[in-house]
Amino acid sequence: MSNEIRDLLESVKEGTVSVEDALKEIKLQPYEDLGYAKPDLHRKKLQGTSEVIYGAGKTAAQIAGIIESFRKNGEDNILITRLDPVKAAEVAETCEFTYYEEGQIGIAGCKAEPSGIGKIVVATGGTSDIPVAEEAALTAEFLGNEVVRLYDVGVAGLHRILSNMDYIMDASVVIAIAGMEGALASVIGGMADCPVIAVPTSVGYGASFGGIAALLSMLNSCASGVSVVNIDNGFGAGYLAGMINHMK
Amino acid sequence: MSNEIRDLLESVKEGTVSVEDALKEIKLQPYEDLGYAKPDLHRKKLQGTSEVIYGAGKTAAQIAGIIESFRKNGEDNILITRLDPVKAAEVAETCEFTYYEEGQIGIAGCKAEPSGIGKIVVATGGTSDIPVAEEAALTAEFLGNEVVRLYDVGVAGLHRILSNMDYIMDASVVIAIAGMEGALASVIGGMADCPVIAVPTSVGYGASFGGIAALLSMLNSCASGVSVVNIDNGFGAGYLAGMINHMK
Amino acid sequence: MSNEIRDLLESVKEGTVSVEDALKEIKLQPYEDLGYAKPDLHRKKLQGTSEVIYGAGKTAAQIAGIIESFRKNGEDNILITRLDPVKAAEVAETCEFTYYEEGQIGIAGCKAEPSGIGKIVVATGGTSDIPVAEEAALTAEFLGNEVVRLYDVGVAGLHRILSNMDYIMDASVVIAIAGMEGALASVIGGMADCPVIAVPTSVGYGASFGGIAALLSMLNSCASGVSVVNIDNGFGAGYLAGMINHMK
Amino acid sequence: MSNEIRDLLESVKEGTVSVEDALKEIKLQPYEDLGYAKPDLHRKKLQGTSEVIYGAGKTAAQIAGIIESFRKNGEDNILITRLDPVKAAEVAETCEFTYYEEGQIGIAGCKAEPSGIGKIVVATGGTSDIPVAEEAALTAEFLGNEVVRLYDVGVAGLHRILSNMDYIMDASVVIAIAGMEGALASVIGGMADCPVIAVPTSVGYGASFGGIAALLSMLNSCASGVSVVNIDNGFGAGYLAGMINHMK
Amino acid sequence: MSNEIRDLLESVKEGTVSVEDALKEIKLQPYEDLGYAKPDLHRKKLQGTSEVIYGAGKTAAQIAGIIESFRKNGEDNILITRLDPVKAAEVAETCEFTYYEEGQIGIAGCKAEPSGIGKIVVATGGTSDIPVAEEAALTAEFLGNEVVRLYDVGVAGLHRILSNMDYIMDASVVIAIAGMEGALASVIGGMADCPVIAVPTSVGYGASFGGIAALLSMLNSCASGVSVVNIDNGFGAGYLAGMINHMK
Amino acid sequence: MSNEIRDLLESVKEGTVSVEDALKEIKLQPYEDLGYAKPDLHRKKLQGTSEVIYGAGKTAAQIAGIIESFRKNGEDNILITRLDPVKAAEVAETCEFTYYEEGQIGIAGCKAEPSGIGKIVVATGGTSDIPVAEEAALTAEFLGNEVVRLYDVGVAGLHRILSNMDYIMDASVVIAIAGMEGALASVIGGMADCPVIAVPTSVGYGASFGGIAALLSMLNSCASGVSVVNIDNGFGAGYLAGMINHMK
Amino acid sequence: MSNEIRDLLESVKEGTVSVEDALKEIKLQPYEDLGYAKPDLHRKKLQGTSEVIYGAGKTAAQIAGIIESFRKNGEDNILITRLDPVKAAEVAETCEFTYYEEGQIGIAGCKAEPSGIGKIVVATGGTSDIPVAEEAALTAEFLGNEVVRLYDVGVAGLHRILSNMDYIMDASVVIAIAGMEGALASVIGGMADCPVIAVPTSVGYGASFGGIAALLSMLNSCASGVSVVNIDNGFGAGYLAGMINHMK
Amino acid sequence: MSNEIRDLLESVKEGTVSVEDALKEIKLQPYEDLGYAKPDLHRKKLQGTSEVIYGAGKTAAQIAGIIESFRKNGEDNILITRLDPVKAAEVAETCEFTYYEEGQIGIAGCKAEPSGIGKIVVATGGTSDIPVAEEAALTAEFLGNEVVRLYDVGVAGLHRILSNMDYIMDASVVIAIAGMEGALASVIGGMADCPVIAVPTSVGYGASFGGIAALLSMLNSCASGVSVVNIDNGFGAGYLAGMINHMK
Repeated sequence: MSNEIRDLLESVKEGTVSVEDALKEIKLQPYEDLGYAKPDLHRKKLQGTSEVIYGAGKTAAQIAGIIESFRKNGEDNILITRLDPVKAAEVAETCEFTYYEEGQIGIAGCKAEPSGIGKIVVATGGTSDIPVAEEAALTAEFLGNEVVRLYDVGVAGLHRILSNMDYIMDASVVIAIAGMEGALASVIGGMADCPVIAVPTSVGYGASFGGIAALLSMLNSCASGVSVVNIDNGFGAGYLAGMINHMK
Repeated sequence: MSNEIRDLLESVKEGTVSVEDALKEIKLQPYEDLGYAKPDLHRKKLQGTSEVIYGAGKTAAQIAGIIESFRKNGEDNILITRLDPVKAAEVAETCEFTYYEEGQIGIAGCKAEPSGIGKIVVATGGTSDIPVAEEAALTAEFLGNEVVRLYDVGVAGLHRILSNMDYIMDASVVIAIAGMEGALASVIGGMADCPVIAVPTSVGYGASFGGIAALLSMLNSCASGVSVVNIDNGFGAGYLAGMINHMK
Repeated sequence: MSNEIRDLLESVKEGTVSVEDALKEIKLQPYEDLGYAKPDLHRKKLQGTSEVIYGAGKTAAQIAGIIESFRKNGEDNILITRLDPVKAAEVAETCEFTYYEEGQIGIAGCKAEPSGIGKIVVATGGTSDIPVAEEAALTAEFLGNEVVRLYDVGVAGLHRILSNMDYIMDASVVIAIAGMEGALASVIGGMADCPVIAVPTSVGYGASFGGIAALLSMLNSCASGVSVVNIDNGFGAGYLAGMINHMK
Repeated sequence: MSNEIRDLLESVKEGTVSVEDALKEIKLQPYEDLGYAKPDLHRKKLQGTSEVIYGAGKTAAQIAGIIESFRKNGEDNILITRLDPVKAAEVAETCEFTYYEEGQIGIAGCKAEPSGIGKIVVATGGTSDIPVAEEAALTAEFLGNEVVRLYDVGVAGLHRILSNMDYIMDASVVIAIAGMEGALASVIGGMADCPVIAVPTSVGYGASFGGIAALLSMLNSCASGVSVVNIDNGFGAGYLAGMINHMK
Repeated sequence: MSNEIRDLLESVKEGTVSVEDALKEIKLQPYEDLGYAKPDLHRKKLQGTSEVIYGAGKTAAQIAGIIESFRKNGEDNILITRLDPVKAAEVAETCEFTYYEEGQIGIAGCKAEPSGIGKIVVATGGTSDIPVAEEAALTAEFLGNEVVRLYDVGVAGLHRILSNMDYIMDASVVIAIAGMEGALASVIGGMADCPVIAVPTSVGYGASFGGIAALLSMLNSCASGVSVVNIDNGFGAGYLAGMINHMK
Repeated sequence: MSNEIRDLLESVKEGTVSVEDALKEIKLQPYEDLGYAKPDLHRKKLQGTSEVIYGAGKTAAQIAGIIESFRKNGEDNILITRLDPVKAAEVAETCEFTYYEEGQIGIAGCKAEPSGIGKIVVATGGTSDIPVAEEAALTAEFLGNEVVRLYDVGVAGLHRILSNMDYIMDASVVIAIAGMEGALASVIGGMADCPVIAVPTSVGYGASFGGIAALLSMLNSCASGVSVVNIDNGFGAGYLAGMINHMK
Repeated sequence: MSNEIRDLLESVKEGTVSVEDALKEIKLQPYEDLGYAKPDLHRKKLQGTSEVIYGAGKTAAQIAGIIESFRKNGEDNILITRLDPVKAAEVAETCEFTYYEEGQIGIAGCKAEPSGIGKIVVATGGTSDIPVAEEAALTAEFLGNEVVRLYDVGVAGLHRILSNMDYIMDASVVIAIAGMEGALASVIGGMADCPVIAVPTSVGYGASFGGIAALLSMLNSCASGVSVVNIDNGFGAGYLAGMINHMK
Repeated sequence: MSNEIRDLLESVKEGTVSVEDALKEIKLQPYEDLGYAKPDLHRKKLQGTSEVIYGAGKTAAQIAGIIESFRKNGEDNILITRLDPVKAAEVAETCEFTYYEEGQIGIAGCKAEPSGIGKIVVATGGTSDIPVAEEAALTAEFLGNEVVRLYDVGVAGLHRILSNMDYIMDASVVIAIAGMEGALASVIGGMADCPVIAVPTSVGYGASFGGIAALLSMLNSCASGVSVVNIDNGFGAGYLAGMINHMK
């Protein structure tokens, strides 16, 4: 039970706050005051001072407005995801930020200094998985993690992943990103002894069904320590990896 | 065009066969006589003198009857698939044959002498895939192929498949059998330079959906030279592998 | 590159090991000696001295044999999962262990002392999810984690989860287990600021389709920090949670 | 049995209507006259004098024509759904009406005065569900219901829905609209003690499958009093809510 | 805001309750005391004094125990759903109640007196849908609603539903229960001008897929005022219908 | 408009029937009297005097009761479908009929004399499709059609169907029954120039998914004149074929 | 066995045809000469002198070329399906034909005179099903059938179909075309005593899944005499209906 | 174990290579040097000197760059798949190659001389399957195989495939390509006694679901010797067929 409620009760007892006002206070901020929740559970405070804006479905003007609002509140470091180049150019007219086209990510302010337990490896099966991988990698970097990128190490050319085994054995967390048959997650899960976050991608042809084949493959991985996020959800993987890499 | 038709026409010309009889002959054996097809396309003649009986859905009496019929026609080597132990015991009361319980296979007569180009490797991801593997391996052996069994070499313990890489590199054909995420086919497909026949199995839990996860994974393999047969279809894989191993 | 290879090369140079013997050594233990992998990547060494046996599909005799084998190699603490009561009774005839019926778990030796960063909360939506939850909780405990059980806190009675919010806010990792609509993962994901591992269960009626409804719901959670394991995969969740809780 | 038939029979008896004419009358309006059905069961008379036009798949000219026809028959209040802005502008050239772009709704004439039992709460999980929500809200308002809009109260930020609990506890009917994991319906269903109509939306990414994840989630809600309409069917939910709010 | 909190604050102000005790009180009963929710949101108070026990997955002893507990708390009228005959007989040994085998429903105490707005019609497409229908009908009756049963009025014999049209036109709510093609909901939806709750059943053959065909058919009904509950969820439909029939 | 209504109106005019009685008459028999429908649309009168009982889900006593009822009403020829041997034996204790075990069909009375346009060919892909085929064939025979059975003529042994091409070319209607890949319907559809009714069966293994593979295959047949009934619906195919064979 | 073969054999016997020439003749025209099949089984001769071109996927030039070719061979009456307006205009530049835009059908020459047993009713659930209906209706008319069009008679407004019941009772064949829930087929199947061909359409929203909901609904119809063709396959239904209407 | 490692060890023994250098060598080329794998397992060396570029998702500049790189390394014969005409024209500006538009294939250098065991037959069900067929045929030809094209021999016109039976009986491998119902694979599988590679195509309408109907049909083929590759995967089929045709 938070101190605010205790203080409020004390004030009521002392008569400095009326019963009605206390009642209103509890009603208006029911959980924050009670210590049940942070001011905005949905946009949980990230490490350091930073915020995230989900860019898809928002206009350039709306995004610029939110950035402005955050800045006024002292949040200078802001991650904008799913920001296509056209919209990025429009936002750039009114506020400054760095745009990473491959991951469709904009970063206002700067990435946090690496402060995690170890390194996060972001591995992809093919080159077409790279956009999802960059979304994951940039998100993790923004949140203060060192990232090692291992792209195009799919299992159909096994030596590619094997010759990078050192990185995987050393990793704090591995994000395994693959479309098609999604076997990368299992192979990495069998090599690594750290948490592996699998991201199926919608890359593929024929019976890949927009990522379902990879998703099912990853869910059925018999390697321990593997969990899965939604198809193409690079942000989710990067965020979770960063969270795990800051466990203490 | 087969010689039989030519001979028949010659006989008609010579008057030794009447028009009506020739007509009847052509009608009764329309394709065989014309050289379009073998007497029984469905049960294509296997290498040597041998036959296959699909045991599921047939009674012990029916199976014994078919064996008897084959033997009367000089077919002494007969493969019986999907033969459960109870039925096998019943069939054994009336006719002699060897029963392989793990693959639910009965073999009357004997396996053909190995005569193929090379060896067929039958690999499984786990131990629970072994029944399907034995169905494949025994079928291939019956048809005159040497078989190397690599069981429980799933990709979640990558060293297991790697330490058997020599067998895979040397194989004439590889049959890759796996349930769960089915990644074995891709990993083997990436290592081997021979045809790889992938068999998804219905082994698995949760979202494996009776083999669909493995099936989709295998169909989406980005390794070249991989094709897929139906879920749990060990016989089909063994038959096809034997066929490829006897290409000439 | 591991010291073993270096030592081996030194020995070759010094003439104390022949070229042939060195060659054989490298071939036989290709990855362990090269430092690429642990002796058995599949059964990665758990915290302390302990092993895991997946009980489903193994006979009581096989399980007893494996336990015996582990014990001879000095592994006294062994977790056996998916062990039904009948089989457990049979195994108990030949070797001693504790059986936890609700989670279908057997533990030979003892659970490791709690040594993780914090506590792991295992929460379920309903009472019928408890078997999966116990599999997760016992696995985590076996691996040296303190576990808080919050059972039957499904979102249809929101006050139940709210009145336990303190536990969730304090957790190191939360395992959210639910069938039916699987909303528990999202609600907990919105409250917690630690990693949340979602486990869909096959509990449900009508259009729950053996866990697919819950699985899809959990994959689509818009709360950050949530990842998903396979349907009913309590062991996987407990193992991963333990791994995260021991990050350092 | 309606009075019209009785009157008709009386007229036949009295000779003022011929048998043939009576026969024709019954044939032309077989059910209305018999009291079994309204003149147009498909377009059931709404509360007051009003009509609905489903705009999708109709040209602007067709829509204008139908409006004209309704007006000639004394129906001045008309709801046009699924009316995109371009078509709305075209229709507006020939007849007057108010256009609500967010819900793609046009209203000719006016909304009925609120006359329901209580208030209808329209809640959405996110901002991208708002178009469906506006379709529902405007439909309900058109039919004479007071509507409270609670937008962007998704469960991933639980305090948002909790701080609006009063509205939900007071509601006559709640329409819960959500894409992604659709958990909103369960959470609201657990709080409210009035009927909850769940509307899955096609909003989402990855494995949301155009609303299927939300649909399944909502169908499996274990909260009592929840029922579901088709994906994105805001009109259907608004209509049903209005109907329930006018029970008597 | 509930009077309890106000009273508590007054007591704190007056000094009759200490700050610590008030704090504890708020913590222990966070929502009940705050007026946000009923004591048990999950088991919302039904009309009159009554409770519901979901019998599936509970032992006879557990059910008897819960009944006992309710009775001690003054809840004499209890509905037990999904209670098979064997379990019912076991429960009957320790406590008295009426068992309705067709709907697999037990009722301890008595059904509430009918007090709704009108009558609830429960209609089924075939005779094999009757168990689901009885679950719905008995639930509604238990909650104080008069029920009209129209069984086996499927659309393949249209005159059967037409000759009962009066009941449907007069109904306050209709529950339309059907497997197979589920067309009953659309046909009734087209005739009725009251809310229609559609219940798909798992009855069917071939491509009915355990109720999916009926579910999709019902969700796609183009009749207004139709909503859908889960497959075979008779209780949910009966509960919701009762709720609507008591709107005021 | 039927003569009965005209007569009724004339009677009203003449005063021999009162307005009230006419009103009642129209109400009680709304469609039959109006000529819109037969007395029992659901159990449409078959050719000659005969009836059908769907045996699944009915007890032996119920079936015997219905037979008795039909016989009292002069219906001596009755088809009972989905009647398993155990139930058949029970029914046989109280009433006489012929039981056809393979098609799970009972026929009380006798089959109608063949009176159709031509012959109906019932063809199956394999021997395991025969139960469905017999249901179709016996239904057609019962309804007065001559049936030619071509069993086990699946396309994997093309000569089998080709050597029976005469029967197919001569048929009035063909019923093509197959599980597995369902190709039989397309091949027959390409050969025949009469209506082909395709019946997918649930026979199959692996990815046949209980008949879905065959169902999709048949729906996608590019041969003209092919339509499809539900999986395993032999009765439906036999009934429809009989109907077509009696077109005039 | 056809006379051509007999004649050929006679000629061989008489020596007017050499053995080699006879052999070649049999080989080149194996089935036509043997009487097994028509010259082109795929494009089976329709009633009278007419041909069908499937327009989708063919260029205007190709279509014009095929028309030309048919005409040179004396086929003056040609049906072109799936012909969009742009392509139709292009084809019209080089050859004369009538274009029916609603059904995307072109007819060169003329429709055959009605010669069937009775009338074919083409009924649709809604107005958006009309394109599929016109494809069916024009196909049937082209093949010499009289067609009655009953459009927009969906079951959600039951009186619409009921007031047209005479047409359905009188029909020789009914084609029931509907998207959404597809209930029309069942309702018509319950009223008609002639074959009903159900055509699911891809019209619909939300969970209609491009026609799957209607397809499943139609396959599960419990009315007898109903069979189903592929989604949107108006041509297939019209062709089959015409075939049935010319049974003799 | 390869000679390179042996040589390396000898050199270490002789002191001509230092321990550190040997260590580095093993690490950098771990598998090639150890004989475990070819230099690039993923792009396995094809017959002769040739390479493959998967064109989809690569820019013209990237493709030209890779071609340049290959040529510098002495690979003059290069196959580029999934190369659309626009990109092909761009690539052609900087490097010379032959473009085959129908199969969307570019070939730099030349096809290898036919050197296989026999001929590969590429058969399609319809004309719209030809693009996939050309991808397969050109791939096989590039890899040194003689190809026989049998296009538009779908089973709905059975004489078309029958009159080409000689080619199929003579083939070394058959690639059976079909959309819609995919029956071609079964029919060819029943005729041929060589391996049949089935390729489902996404061609089709209605319930073909982008190739799923054909895929399932082909997986369920009961003909022996049939295996399946991914939907539209002409390259995979051509590559595998070439591999089988070069077995020795």
